[in-house]
Amino acid sequence: MNTDFDMHELTRSLHCKNDSKIVLLVADGLGGLPMDPGGPTELEAAKTPHLDELAQRGVCGGSIPVKLGIAPGSGPGHLALFGYDPLKYVIGRGALEATGIGFELGPHDVAVRGNYCTLDAAGKISDRRAGRFASEESAPLADKLGAVKIPGVEVFVRPVKEHRFVVVFRGQGLGGDVADTDPQATGVPPLDPVAKPGSEKTAQVAKEFISQARKILAGETKANGLTLRGFAEKPKLPTYEEVYGLKAAAIAVYPMYKGLARLVGMDIVGNAQTLGEQTDVLKRYWTEYDFFFMHFKYTDSTGEDGNFAAKVKRIEELDNALPCITALKPTVLIVTGDHSTPAKLKSHSWHPVPTVLVSDVCRTDGCQKFGESEALRGGLGLFEAKYLMPLALSNAGRMGKYGA
Amino acid sequence: MNTDFDMHELTRSLHCKNDSKIVLLVADGLGGLPMDPGGPTELEAAKTPHLDELAQRGVCGGSIPVKLGIAPGSGPGHLALFGYDPLKYVIGRGALEATGIGFELGPHDVAVRGNYCTLDAAGKISDRRAGRFASEESAPLADKLGAVKIPGVEVFVRPVKEHRFVVVFRGQGLGGDVADTDPQATGVPPLDPVAKPGSEKTAQVAKEFISQARKILAGETKANGLTLRGFAEKPKLPTYEEVYGLKAAAIAVYPMYKGLARLVGMDIVGNAQTLGEQTDVLKRYWTEYDFFFMHFKYTDSTGEDGNFAAKVKRIEELDNALPCITALKPTVLIVTGDHSTPAKLKSHSWHPVPTVLVSDVCRTDGCQKFGESEALRGGLGLFEAKYLMPLALSNAGRMGKYGA
Repeated sequence: MNTDFDMHELTRSLHCKNDSKIVLLVADGLGGLPMDPGGPTELEAAKTPHLDELAQRGVCGGSIPVKLGIAPGSGPGHLALFGYDPLKYVIGRGALEATGIGFELGPHDVAVRGNYCTLDAAGKISDRRAGRFASEESAPLADKLGAVKIPGVEVFVRPVKEHRFVVVFRGQGLGGDVADTDPQATGVPPLDPVAKPGSEKTAQVAKEFISQARKILAGETKANGLTLRGFAEKPKLPTYEEVYGLKAAAIAVYPMYKGLARLVGMDIVGNAQTLGEQTDVLKRYWTEYDFFFMHFKYTDSTGEDGNFAAKVKRIEELDNALPCITALKPTVLIVTGDHSTPAKLKSHSWHPVPTVLVSDVCRTDGCQKFGESEALRGGLGLFEAKYLMPLALSNAGRMGKYGA
Repeated sequence: MNTDFDMHELTRSLHCKNDSKIVLLVADGLGGLPMDPGGPTELEAAKTPHLDELAQRGVCGGSIPVKLGIAPGSGPGHLALFGYDPLKYVIGRGALEATGIGFELGPHDVAVRGNYCTLDAAGKISDRRAGRFASEESAPLADKLGAVKIPGVEVFVRPVKEHRFVVVFRGQGLGGDVADTDPQATGVPPLDPVAKPGSEKTAQVAKEFISQARKILAGETKANGLTLRGFAEKPKLPTYEEVYGLKAAAIAVYPMYKGLARLVGMDIVGNAQTLGEQTDVLKRYWTEYDFFFMHFKYTDSTGEDGNFAAKVKRIEELDNALPCITALKPTVLIVTGDHSTPAKLKSHSWHPVPTVLVSDVCRTDGCQKFGESEALRGGLGLFEAKYLMPLALSNAGRMGKYGA
């Protein structure tokens, strides 16, 4: 896609090192909406004394993950926060699915999303999602498919939810440019995998995989067939070390966010399952890294559930954890989200995400509370998320000036 | 560099002429920071009745010189104010150094930064900056090096500060793409000048210059060698006349800012040394030009010194001079800075620069005072500096509409 200027062209040459510490605390889907006209958003309804104190000490703004009016998925939302232009760097569907289940992709991998489907006697699709296929049935089937053998290629099959699985082909010379085999219709057979130039080997491998898999699945009543979608290589992303000179660690609970962090070269540290454990991990690794990405999932999942009150509670839970972070005295602390997930919409949305950046040199802006309305009037104004990292580096004294 | 849309593509075709007058008053490094949390910035601490009156009559905003989070040097800072995308137009180091000492570069020039260094008996660098080399020693050495003769090429050598000098090669077919000869280390000899295709002649000329210079410097104890860095041609910038249809004059005290103005085709008028003399020059040339760039240096130099109180005084001095400018009734008056230089940081910074634009048609915004916090809430919001010129033209009635 034709995109704007790539900030990495500047950060690459301007970054410098010092002893500063940067914390990026991402409350997934943080931004919200009032349930009723004139009411507060989830964040405005929550009691957040610690976030409000940050708003008073820091500089606030509304983060636009991609562009005004665009609701992003988790992939582009996080890439933008990490400073990677989400229109320039695209994570293929298969690669995102693999990342989401914690499968660590290598440079010679092509990842694909698989769907079990039901085929009739003529080999035509009668059910694109294999009927009422439970997640528990998925795992043993994936194990069975793991028996597929293709010369010169390693094959990994992993269950996802319900009728979905991931297959990864690992081998030399595999390209990711292969069309979906899902015809998006019933009454027709699955399509053959068709390659664009450079990916012919992958299409052949996929064909062989499908052929062997059909034999393995032949005895199944519901899941006797499969379709493959979203062929994708591991995205080529420059690392945090290269573009920012930062040794970075990720403290996340869910595989998707660990995976996204790994793609930009962060180390995954600790094995925290709760926010309290996450701050413990932060403390434990404090001296070893320059940059910490902390991910809090539940502001998004409660929003997706349409549960305003539960999202308010999760925001308050996050607020309660803040003193454990500020006690470490990070040079720069950023609290933001990868996108908005208003309970009212039960989905990701395009609304700017309330954001606060705190440092000793951030130039405060008079904001008194952390919330959507006040953040708009903050010193960062409305800004694209990809500028947060250059701001963080500058506030940490880690950027030289551009030009003499 | 891959950059955003170039505003000149629009201004070139849309600009038109009239009798309006535009004044761009640049207080270098104007933006600041509070010294202590909750305190005022330099501008907010200063008594500025005239600037405040402009803020009430005008439209305010925060100017971002390059991009959010990027601190610019004087070159990109001014190019942006002049409406030239600072990521698209880059002034090479040698060219900027020559500009800074008032050397007027021509189209066939390559400018280079030179450093005197100390070489040991084996020709290896023992001191990259020639020991404690005083500025007074630099001028006579530059004169001596002026004796270098190279067939077909004019050579100019000018002293800068301490161990630094500028050399300009003038001749046909000289390219600026030659690598530095400074090995950035001691214990090794200087490197040979190595050219990229198209600049081979420059490398040969530089080699000959170094050879003759070494003989001239042979008797020196400290400065018996030299390194060359930042080879650069005169940057190719379209002129104010071409992109805006403006006959433009610069009223600056320091060579750097005269030089930058000259690069975009402004005439340097008068020989003012003080702000009072600058406003006198403005008055004298008022009928002869459409556009005036006035540069005030001391808001930057006091900021660089870390002297908050002195910067406040300089801002008040500028405020005092405003009635002499407004008395001329410019159609459009802009007061801004090329970047922030907070006394707290003692350096250029990335913070947005408070900016006010006054015209009869600017749409005021309720700002009562001229300062960082209020400007943020102004009608220009946070904006990239390169948009100031199109705004100035439109407010002066000098821009037609885009499309029918």
